[in-house]
Amino acid sequence: MQIAYILYDNITLLDLAGVYDPVSRLRPLGYLPHLKWDLCALQESVMDSYNLSIQINKVQPNLAVYDMIIVPGGLGSRTMIRNPQFMKWLRTAVGVRWKVSVCTGSLLLGAAGFLQGRRATTHFEQYEALAPYCGQVLQDRIVEDFDVITAGAVASSLDLGLYLCEKLAGPEARLAVQKRMNYWPPA
Amino acid sequence: MQIAYILYDNITLLDLAGVYDPVSRLRPLGYLPHLKWDLCALQESVMDSYNLSIQINKVQPNLAVYDMIIVPGGLGSRTMIRNPQFMKWLRTAVGVRWKVSVCTGSLLLGAAGFLQGRRATTHFEQYEALAPYCGQVLQDRIVEDFDVITAGAVASSLDLGLYLCEKLAGPEARLAVQKRMNYWPPA
Repeated sequence: MQIAYILYDNITLLDLAGVYDPVSRLRPLGYLPHLKWDLCALQESVMDSYNLSIQINKVQPNLAVYDMIIVPGGLGSRTMIRNPQFMKWLRTAVGVRWKVSVCTGSLLLGAAGFLQGRRATTHFEQYEALAPYCGQVLQDRIVEDFDVITAGAVASSLDLGLYLCEKLAGPEARLAVQKRMNYWPPA
Repeated sequence: MQIAYILYDNITLLDLAGVYDPVSRLRPLGYLPHLKWDLCALQESVMDSYNLSIQINKVQPNLAVYDMIIVPGGLGSRTMIRNPQFMKWLRTAVGVRWKVSVCTGSLLLGAAGFLQGRRATTHFEQYEALAPYCGQVLQDRIVEDFDVITAGAVASSLDLGLYLCEKLAGPEARLAVQKRMNYWPPA
C-alpha cells in the first residue's frame, strides 16, 4: 500500500495533518506494517498558507505507481488549476485505485477530469465551483464514489482519515486509531 | 500578540497543526490583524515522527519576548527532557504570560519547572509521568491554571486552538473560526 500526498504552495496544513495523522498510525499500530507514503510536489519544498515550509521527498514522480493519492485543499488550489505543468503531473494518477481529496483539493481532482460523472463534495463555500467538474455535488462531510473519495472543509480531514483507516484496515483499526488520537466527533 | 511554537524532532504534526490552524485564522479573519508567530527550535529544521521535515524561522530565540509559547507533544518530548540545551532554552520562557502545551508537550513544561503547584493535563497514558512535575493532574481535555494551559492527546489540539481563539479574541471570533474549519466537537 503506497500513498502519495500531493502538495503545492498555499495548502492548508490541517487539511494534510488531519488525514496524515490517523492514516500514518496504521503502520506503528501494526495494522498496515508495510504502509508507505511520499510527500510529492512539483518542487523540493512547499509552503502552507502562512509560509510554513515542508520538505518534499519525491519531486514530480509518476503517480501511476501509487495505490492512493491524497490532495489537501488550500488557497493554492485555485492557482494550481491554471498551472499546466501541475495538471499534467496530477493526471498521471488517472489509473490510481483511490483518488482522495480534502476541502478544495476536490477542485484539483475535478480539473484533472477525475470527477466526471461522479458524486463529490468540497469546502462548503465552493459547491458551485465544484459543480461543473462532477456529476453531482453532495453537501456531505465525506463522499465516496467508485475511485474517488472527497471530504469537506478543513476539520473533516480528521473524519476522512478515520474513514480511510476503516477502508484500508477495518473497523477495529479505525477504533484503535481513534482512541490514540482521542478524537470523538458527534455521531 | 506574538506566539512562539516550540518545535523539536519527533513532534506529532497534528499536535501542531490542530492548534496552529484555528489560532492563525484570527489574523486573516481580522480579529487579531497584528498577530505574529514564529516556528522556533534548537536547529534550522525539525522532523515529525514520520520524518516530515519542517523549516524553522527562529533558531533558539530568547523566548522572553513572546506573549505565548505553544509546545506540541510527540515521542521526541521524552528525548528533549534529557537535553540540557533544550531545557535551558525553554526556561527563557519563564516569564511568558501564557505557557501552552498539547499532549506530552506538558512534560516539557513540567521539566522546565513551569507546572509547579499548578493543575495540568497531558496524553491519557502519561498522567503518571506528569504527576511529579505539577500540583495536580486533571484528566480533562483542556486545563487552565494561571499562566499555564495544557491539553490532552492529539485531537484535543483543535479544541485547544478554539479555546485560545476565545481567550485571545472573544467568543464571536471563536465561532467564526469554528465555522471556517467546519469543526463541531460534541458539547
